[in-house]
Amino acid sequence: MNNKELISDIAIKMNLSKSEVQDLTDNFLDCCISQLQDGKSIGFQSFGAFEVIKREERISVHPQSKERSLIPPKLVLNFKQSQILKEKINSNL
Amino acid sequence: MNNKELISDIAIKMNLSKSEVQDLTDNFLDCCISQLQDGKSIGFQSFGAFEVIKREERISVHPQSKERSLIPPKLVLNFKQSQILKEKINSNL
Repeated sequence: MNNKELISDIAIKMNLSKSEVQDLTDNFLDCCISQLQDGKSIGFQSFGAFEVIKREERISVHPQSKERSLIPPKLVLNFKQSQILKEKINSNL
Repeated sequence: MNNKELISDIAIKMNLSKSEVQDLTDNFLDCCISQLQDGKSIGFQSFGAFEVIKREERISVHPQSKERSLIPPKLVLNFKQSQILKEKINSNL
């Protein structure tokens, strides 16, 4: 399912127009992203938690050439599903 | 940051009441969850993609007692951050 289908689903459920829902979704994701950019984590009880984690720099050795290179540090977004979501997903297994 | 703070942030940004935003967020997450429950994946270009993955059943051996037990299959939610989000998060590194 892509973004468009999800938005039309939500629009029907909430009795709003698609463009309103598109706006809301964009704003929602924007707020989430700006929180994460500030290094803050976000949590939703019914869904899960997002947390920005720093991967430290490390030295990588090329297996053939034995050349060593420095992999720079980077930030990655980690997602941990909540217990509620875990149970919901597995309910029809 | 918890759910409440995020909601008041979005409410300010969108010029809506907190209860309206709470409603929207709940509906948004509900729609996402019901999609995932149907085994469908969800993707947002600006954020990332969620996909339900099946972990097959496997036999686990207790290291001390050597007792063997069957771990049942389970469904887990996998999140993959999008390229756009990756760049945004790393922009102030």
